[in-house]
Amino acid sequence: MPSVTSILKRLVLGRPFRSDKLGETLLPKRLALPIFASDPLYSVTYATQEILLILTLGGLTFLHLAPWVALAVVVLLTVVVLSYRQVVQAYPSGGGSYEVASRNLGRPAGLVVAGALLVDYILTVAVSVAAGVDNIISAIPELNPYRVAINLGFIVFLTAMNLRGVRESGRTFAIPTYAFVVGVLIMIVVGLARTLGGNPPVAESAALDIHPEQTGLTGLALAFLVLRAFSSGCTALTGAEAISNGVPAFRTPKGLNAARTMLAMGALSVTMFTGITALALISQVHFAENPCDLIGFPGNCETDAQRTVIAQVAAAVFGGDHTVFFYYLQAAAALILILAANTAFNGFPLLGSILAQDRFLPRQLHTRGDRLNFSNGIILLAAIAGLLIYAFDGSATRLIQLYIVGVFTSFTLCQAGMVRHWNRELATADTPAERRRIHRARVINAFGACFTGVVLVVVLITKFAHGAYLVVIAIPVLYGLMRAIHRHYDRVREELLPDADSSVPPSRVHALVLTSTLHKPTLRAIAFARATRPDTLTAITVNVDDADTHALRRQWEQHHVKAPLKVLESPYREITRPLVRYVKNLRRESPRDVVCVYIPEYVVGHWWENLLHNQSALRLKTRLLFEPGVMVVSVPWQLRSSARRVQQRLITSPGDVRRGIPQPPPPQRTTSE
Amino acid sequence: MPSVTSILKRLVLGRPFRSDKLGETLLPKRLALPIFASDPLYSVTYATQEILLILTLGGLTFLHLAPWVALAVVVLLTVVVLSYRQVVQAYPSGGGSYEVASRNLGRPAGLVVAGALLVDYILTVAVSVAAGVDNIISAIPELNPYRVAINLGFIVFLTAMNLRGVRESGRTFAIPTYAFVVGVLIMIVVGLARTLGGNPPVAESAALDIHPEQTGLTGLALAFLVLRAFSSGCTALTGAEAISNGVPAFRTPKGLNAARTMLAMGALSVTMFTGITALALISQVHFAENPCDLIGFPGNCETDAQRTVIAQVAAAVFGGDHTVFFYYLQAAAALILILAANTAFNGFPLLGSILAQDRFLPRQLHTRGDRLNFSNGIILLAAIAGLLIYAFDGSATRLIQLYIVGVFTSFTLCQAGMVRHWNRELATADTPAERRRIHRARVINAFGACFTGVVLVVVLITKFAHGAYLVVIAIPVLYGLMRAIHRHYDRVREELLPDADSSVPPSRVHALVLTSTLHKPTLRAIAFARATRPDTLTAITVNVDDADTHALRRQWEQHHVKAPLKVLESPYREITRPLVRYVKNLRRESPRDVVCVYIPEYVVGHWWENLLHNQSALRLKTRLLFEPGVMVVSVPWQLRSSARRVQQRLITSPGDVRRGIPQPPPPQRTTSE
Repeated sequence: MPSVTSILKRLVLGRPFRSDKLGETLLPKRLALPIFASDPLYSVTYATQEILLILTLGGLTFLHLAPWVALAVVVLLTVVVLSYRQVVQAYPSGGGSYEVASRNLGRPAGLVVAGALLVDYILTVAVSVAAGVDNIISAIPELNPYRVAINLGFIVFLTAMNLRGVRESGRTFAIPTYAFVVGVLIMIVVGLARTLGGNPPVAESAALDIHPEQTGLTGLALAFLVLRAFSSGCTALTGAEAISNGVPAFRTPKGLNAARTMLAMGALSVTMFTGITALALISQVHFAENPCDLIGFPGNCETDAQRTVIAQVAAAVFGGDHTVFFYYLQAAAALILILAANTAFNGFPLLGSILAQDRFLPRQLHTRGDRLNFSNGIILLAAIAGLLIYAFDGSATRLIQLYIVGVFTSFTLCQAGMVRHWNRELATADTPAERRRIHRARVINAFGACFTGVVLVVVLITKFAHGAYLVVIAIPVLYGLMRAIHRHYDRVREELLPDADSSVPPSRVHALVLTSTLHKPTLRAIAFARATRPDTLTAITVNVDDADTHALRRQWEQHHVKAPLKVLESPYREITRPLVRYVKNLRRESPRDVVCVYIPEYVVGHWWENLLHNQSALRLKTRLLFEPGVMVVSVPWQLRSSARRVQQRLITSPGDVRRGIPQPPPPQRTTSE
Repeated sequence: MPSVTSILKRLVLGRPFRSDKLGETLLPKRLALPIFASDPLYSVTYATQEILLILTLGGLTFLHLAPWVALAVVVLLTVVVLSYRQVVQAYPSGGGSYEVASRNLGRPAGLVVAGALLVDYILTVAVSVAAGVDNIISAIPELNPYRVAINLGFIVFLTAMNLRGVRESGRTFAIPTYAFVVGVLIMIVVGLARTLGGNPPVAESAALDIHPEQTGLTGLALAFLVLRAFSSGCTALTGAEAISNGVPAFRTPKGLNAARTMLAMGALSVTMFTGITALALISQVHFAENPCDLIGFPGNCETDAQRTVIAQVAAAVFGGDHTVFFYYLQAAAALILILAANTAFNGFPLLGSILAQDRFLPRQLHTRGDRLNFSNGIILLAAIAGLLIYAFDGSATRLIQLYIVGVFTSFTLCQAGMVRHWNRELATADTPAERRRIHRARVINAFGACFTGVVLVVVLITKFAHGAYLVVIAIPVLYGLMRAIHRHYDRVREELLPDADSSVPPSRVHALVLTSTLHKPTLRAIAFARATRPDTLTAITVNVDDADTHALRRQWEQHHVKAPLKVLESPYREITRPLVRYVKNLRRESPRDVVCVYIPEYVVGHWWENLLHNQSALRLKTRLLFEPGVMVVSVPWQLRSSARRVQQRLITSPGDVRRGIPQPPPPQRTTSE
């Protein structure tokens, strides 16, 4: 029932926002940071674990390479953050990598980036939620049978939060993000202080040896292992560009504020990643993908999981896993992981809206809902992420393999685009200071492009067989889809461009009133049709049953109806075909004429009442729309039950819910030309 | 895609039939018998088993009561057949029990009968198919996991057969029915001949003793057991009245032909039932519901089932279960059981059509499909029966408990109605011979009414807890539903009766053309609207985005459009609400005016193209229909892709499929008044 759904909608979404309130939902930096950066700020903690996990495939021997791998990730992170500071200032419209690539490298490059970003946003939601639920299930194993349901529940929750609007979700999500960052920083300080004081933390797994899955690695194989560790560590960079896509949500000066937020995020990320990795190595966390590779693992390695690296470090630093601070950090970590998905809920609809404006995605993604957000984009994202989680049984381990390829595709193309951008800027720069600034910026972006390009190749090679191939399929498919949509819109727009012929009036109007029985709706339709003064007016009926038709003719005579009744024969008891033929014939005789088909309809108040009345009018209307030179006129007759329904609707409509009682419509504010 | 579906439809259904071919699908008696009587002809064999099964709950002691129980069933069967011979002749319109009860006992009684019959038709399909599949699964136990799927498969098959039309399905179904009847008759003759010759058949279970579930039965308890056996034996009567509901499908003289077919069915049923019961008792078939009650049962009584009574008798008569004749009879039995469901596929849609004509069921059930059958009724029956089978896991044993209550409800009310019918006839009868005939008929029907009424009470008491209570709920629910539907139609009809006011023309017509951008569809809509010479003509747009609205105004000036553009403000970015308010205001100023809203639409050729265009026009149209005094005019603009679709449709439409190539429409056969 519409009344219930609209009440529910208001309960979930709150009141609708007026368009002129758009300015008020802009974000201050202290809220923009947690909204756009919860994903990158969490993923640094995950990155350490991923690096250790790959290196220990070769046993403990290669753990000494971890600092070098981590250093490479830090350098990469720094380069990317510096590169993107240039992007947000040069392109503050929120197009981010997509806009940079399109403008500087052309449409195709832009669309590849767009496809990569869309894929990665979806994966961010799926992976973050799945990993968060993993954490919860590690704590409460009884929930394991409901894994997928819990995942989907969180997605529904996030969708509802985001449908309410960006600012409120910002406030909600700021707390756990800051709580988590502060917690990690305290842990790092305490841990390093203990180390300097000669009492370094010792992890619970420090004493465990690891059974290598790959032995005697040398030369190329070793290099491949290190590269795989590096590309796994690159998860630290996921979401790094969310800020560049969210610039329009910042307060003015948008570009500068975004660049500063970017820098804050970069500084925090590097600090946290370095600190956690250092502490993990100091406290000798020995982490294996498969617990059965751990020699001396306490518990059943088949069913029990090893605790996450961040959990082990926290336990080691704070002295055991029963301290308040340990629980605090674990709770914040679990929470931020679910909320990291929110980054994508901000980025995806914005990008979708930009792509829709450029006519690469359906127009609906460009429309703001009544809370001023892009509701269709939010719902689309939630639906696809939900499907992915369902298809992958909510397994974060399997979903994460699809990740990162998209991230680095867009990094590389974006930086390459920036190089071109600076080349063009250089041509118009006047002062030497300006030229120096541009030269410096170009070097940063050129280095960024090369570096991320190499990483993209590394990631593709090392992760292809582990699932990345799916993304390698998905991006071109999206690319083709967006091109096709664009072509469609272009074709339609071109077809519909007004020309001299479009305003030529028809020479004559033939009114046909569709009749099955003689009742009020029919008589009203005839009266209305007469009021439009057509050149000809005919009531028309299809003879499906001789007795009925005969009765109709008799009634017609009795009531002296002021229109001739024409009977179309229909040997196969169809309604649509004989009518369409009749209309075609009329038009064939004089193609400049217009046929106006009046269809009397009754409007019922309850959905089930529709079941009791034939739907042939609807089918007929749909079919007639395919005929050129035909107008279809619905002449409704409101049954009494429908009046009640309209009243119900009014009572529960947003404008009136706030006032609590049905109101007469306010005077119309209209401006006429 | 419509093209594929219409091809599929033609493949399944065959060519459409012209209305004037209706006469040709009438049935000769030799086809009417198997079509309407496959259910009662099979159920007699089942009845014997049901009787034995209940009696042996008390051990072998009470088997001597079996002939008396069987005799009661034979008497009942005779009475019912004789009673219904009167019905088909007095009411040859096919209304059967429903018509008799309505006309003579009033609407409520008629509706109770109708509800009972509808329920029993559905159960006939469910039980027969389920029992048939049981037989198949007894032969091939590997199919057991697919029980429900096989059941549903048969229902789909029967549905398709019946959608093709009644005559062809008659021919198909006649063969197994006759094969089965002939087989049983041969078996009875051979079996009795062997008995007379001093070499009576001996069943495989003759040597088995039965462990009684209920011991020391005397007095009331014994009476209850006998009554339960009797009411189980009454399954022999299910479907007996199908002929009375199918009279219109007979050739003329319909009543007489139906009465003769009824008599043939009765004679065959009594012969078969008596013969099978006699042979079962002679060959000492010992049958228990639970094989573990059989002392000395060969095989595992937990998993293996005892063979059906008819199978045991056949094996005994023909000397073992490897004779050709044994297999022949088993195959025919399995086949006829599935096809017995067909009785209901003929009866249900006919009854549904009659009820729809009397406005107790939705009108759609009254329309004949393009094969001249009541396709909607067939599909409805199949759907509900499928649901029942799904809900009961395809278990015939559980479904059969719901049966029989409905049958005897309609028997009783129908016979009582016939008594009244004769009373009325008596008042107008002239000759003494006529009066004698009526007196005789009245005695038969009065006896029938009492007898079946008593049986109804017995069945209700003995089967209530075993599932019959569900039917006791379902019949009143159906009754209420039919009353509600009738009230709805009555209310609507009364509301729509033409009165003096209906033909009054509106005083003025205001044309509003809905505009979002200035393209060909908009211009055409304006040109068309101008052609209807409205009193006022305004192009109207809703300001959702200031920039878009501004652009629209500029275009408007550039193109010198011949209509003023009015902009409605919409602070909450809605389209529908401001427009509806504007229309309401127009109408408030002068309520006798009519507002004509022109909506330019583009018509696309592919369903997916709809996803790329906003659906707000559709929502708007639906909402505007609720406003009094508003006409909604769709002015379609056919995109090029839509033209292709219409062509495709034409190619695959029924009329043209037969000729193989698309044809220009033939000259229209129309008659005008």
